[in-house]
Amino acid sequence: MTPEEFREAGHQLIDWIADYRSTIEERRVLADVVPGEVSGALAALPPTAPEAFSSVLADLDAVVLPGVTNVQHPMHFGWFPANAALASVLGDLASSGIGSLGISWESCPSLTEVEEVVCDWMRQLVGLSEAWSGTIQDTASTACVVALLAARERATDFSETAGGLQASERPLVVYTTDQAHSSVLKAVAIAGYGADNLRMVPVDPVTRAMRADVLATMLESDLAAGSQPAAVVASIGTTGTTAFDPLVEIAVVLERANRTLAHPIWLHVDAAMAGSAMLCPELRPLWEGVEAADSLSFNPHKWLGTILDTSLFYVRDSQHLVRVFSSNPSYLQSSADGRVTQYRDWGIPLGRRFRALKLWFHLRLDGPESMRIRIRRDLANARWLADQVEAAPDWQVVAPVQLQTVCVRHVPGDLAGESLETHTQRWASSVNRSGEAYVTPSKLDDSWMIRVSIGVEGTERRHVERLWQLLRTAAASASDESTAAEPSGRG
Amino acid sequence: MTPEEFREAGHQLIDWIADYRSTIEERRVLADVVPGEVSGALAALPPTAPEAFSSVLADLDAVVLPGVTNVQHPMHFGWFPANAALASVLGDLASSGIGSLGISWESCPSLTEVEEVVCDWMRQLVGLSEAWSGTIQDTASTACVVALLAARERATDFSETAGGLQASERPLVVYTTDQAHSSVLKAVAIAGYGADNLRMVPVDPVTRAMRADVLATMLESDLAAGSQPAAVVASIGTTGTTAFDPLVEIAVVLERANRTLAHPIWLHVDAAMAGSAMLCPELRPLWEGVEAADSLSFNPHKWLGTILDTSLFYVRDSQHLVRVFSSNPSYLQSSADGRVTQYRDWGIPLGRRFRALKLWFHLRLDGPESMRIRIRRDLANARWLADQVEAAPDWQVVAPVQLQTVCVRHVPGDLAGESLETHTQRWASSVNRSGEAYVTPSKLDDSWMIRVSIGVEGTERRHVERLWQLLRTAAASASDESTAAEPSGRG
Repeated sequence: MTPEEFREAGHQLIDWIADYRSTIEERRVLADVVPGEVSGALAALPPTAPEAFSSVLADLDAVVLPGVTNVQHPMHFGWFPANAALASVLGDLASSGIGSLGISWESCPSLTEVEEVVCDWMRQLVGLSEAWSGTIQDTASTACVVALLAARERATDFSETAGGLQASERPLVVYTTDQAHSSVLKAVAIAGYGADNLRMVPVDPVTRAMRADVLATMLESDLAAGSQPAAVVASIGTTGTTAFDPLVEIAVVLERANRTLAHPIWLHVDAAMAGSAMLCPELRPLWEGVEAADSLSFNPHKWLGTILDTSLFYVRDSQHLVRVFSSNPSYLQSSADGRVTQYRDWGIPLGRRFRALKLWFHLRLDGPESMRIRIRRDLANARWLADQVEAAPDWQVVAPVQLQTVCVRHVPGDLAGESLETHTQRWASSVNRSGEAYVTPSKLDDSWMIRVSIGVEGTERRHVERLWQLLRTAAASASDESTAAEPSGRG
Repeated sequence: MTPEEFREAGHQLIDWIADYRSTIEERRVLADVVPGEVSGALAALPPTAPEAFSSVLADLDAVVLPGVTNVQHPMHFGWFPANAALASVLGDLASSGIGSLGISWESCPSLTEVEEVVCDWMRQLVGLSEAWSGTIQDTASTACVVALLAARERATDFSETAGGLQASERPLVVYTTDQAHSSVLKAVAIAGYGADNLRMVPVDPVTRAMRADVLATMLESDLAAGSQPAAVVASIGTTGTTAFDPLVEIAVVLERANRTLAHPIWLHVDAAMAGSAMLCPELRPLWEGVEAADSLSFNPHKWLGTILDTSLFYVRDSQHLVRVFSSNPSYLQSSADGRVTQYRDWGIPLGRRFRALKLWFHLRLDGPESMRIRIRRDLANARWLADQVEAAPDWQVVAPVQLQTVCVRHVPGDLAGESLETHTQRWASSVNRSGEAYVTPSKLDDSWMIRVSIGVEGTERRHVERLWQLLRTAAASASDESTAAEPSGRG
């Protein structure tokens, strides 16, 4: 494709995107396709000759979009928000258009240095001290793997340079809670610690936050048993209920334990969702104590709205990271070595996209104040919804609303046990299948509840009001079905 | 930013990209900035108010572009090609515009199913059997980590579910050659094997390919010593000299060794660069035996031209991958589970971009035949250059030219030792600093040589001819400098 052909097709695609975004409310939220429907509509054999742009664009409309769950839809209340602000889409387009290659500073100095600058802008915007250096990873999952690898290597005096983790003499142990994101378990597996060496520290039954006092006891007992505590992963805004682990208390426990240890225990803070909130100074008490951590991740590609994949990862000692991840073959050496940042040594991949441009465009074109206004709007909407739910008969808010997620259950009459489980799944599924809104069923204390996660860029109060109507209608008609079905034994 | 503001700015940005790409030959190849120059030109404090799109665009021109090494420039002969074909840029833009979220099939069925389809198209295009299932990773580095984690877990009966790698009884060993990409060493470190358990199998002194007979001996000796061979990483087109490890012979050695082993040794094939070549049936003998591998990666974001990050990763047993990487928290469960592919279980990150669109657009808009024509053009250009170098006095082609990379040295008179090293670095550096072309100095047998890697979309014969002129001029004037400098002891 020549630049002139690109120019013509590009203008069409820009219009297509602008049209899609401006009419998104006319669409369903949840994709309405069955497994295999999208792939079945595409050719099984690869193309042989070039096709016209119009036919690819037509397939985007006819085949791809019906199979897209529209997470930019203002009635999307599922998972966590995955905003893709249009200002950041432009930054991503600029990155693709330039088509640079990030394998060393020399291969694209701007890629490295814009990343340094925007990571530092974000550091300032969330109120972190100058002790932190940042980089952009694809996701908080990868950031957690990187953190646990850094922890593993610190705990073993760089076993990777010798016999590897397999040569470790004492079992290395990692601590988190059962409210932590599934990626923590996965990172523990990937880093080779093994599930047996992952300790689930109990949480407070109301706040779902880690019990720092029990962490202290568990550390002592593991040390007494000959194990080596290597890392604690604390959650700032858990996925289930946006719970906040008490960083100040955890830091005190670790500080005390570290006094007797040859290698301090690594504290990683997973603030994937809630980190964005720290743009608002009034919310920073929620992560008080964060300065005690060794590493920290949060995702502008969630609430903040910079398009995937933009996960910020900050460390206090970037030289440790470099030691764990560095590679310096002859074909990547240059005269700038030693005077520049080589981000390949801060994570897993060698080749990196110019991801910083999406954050750079987003921060400059939309400005941080518009993000703060949105965050405060969403918090107010969540509080409004929680108030409605709490005031309604048979409805419960089942976890403290500390951020923008409201966890609810509808418990009509004396419904309990399996009948309640079925009821919850039934009404949530009817909301989701309707296409008018999407909410996420999730388990709390092994029982289903519904997470209403507010935070899409386009979600205003009227959308939350409409959702509340939908939830009540769906729950009421599911109740009717349950009651009607009861005699025939289907309840 | 509203959709209408996006429309207006987007049109400007499309024009900016089309202009950049159509005038790229007027630019330098290597960025001409000193460390800190780009970051120093940007504000140290984050923005406070939204800025006009025109000012961001102006900074792209004034600050960012001067710091970009233009790897799309037809005179870029460095590293490996990192093509970013404009058809694939459009696919990437479509992905960003839709702003979907890939965390489960349900979160965007099209994201999963288009990926399944394009991975299968690519499988067919490179002539792999139907036994392979594919996914898109960010890079071949990550693919290698995933492969070595899969190998580790197969070798240890899923130690991740119990005591982890640290509980392994016998040291797990990985085999590769010193010609393998640096990411193999890094993957061995990340996966916890430890550098002591990485064996460098000797290579043939001419072809630089793994000696399968020595691999056999090393396996025997490790087994006799109580170690457990876990994986072999074979290179199909090494970074240094595009050497090809002999897969058929390696497969025979492994098949024999596996007969006596409880867990077969995992064979991973790193075809990051050369995989694209397999679009041409006449080149497939270069990876004969590939069907014996357990996993395979190659990067359309190199020679094929689909923009970063598009690294294909194929496995023969996707269920094994799922067992190693699966996570299934309640908030990600849906009624489609068990009937659909969950790509989060095929690698490290949870959230994934809709990467398949870039490959889908690229294959459909440009068509595979145009890629084959380009690949054959580049091979012919490499052969042409090699012929010139071989025919020129004082010039040497120092490794067999099997693909599109020509490794050269200029050895005037009896220059040797440190003087030769200085000479090579001097003339290469003068070519690169001129901005007119870029080549990569690299070490072979601990001595500097120059890799001329041909394969940028825009590189025609005239560019290679011009490069050959530049190389001779630079080498001649470096020789003059050496001679002139000799008496004063600077040689």
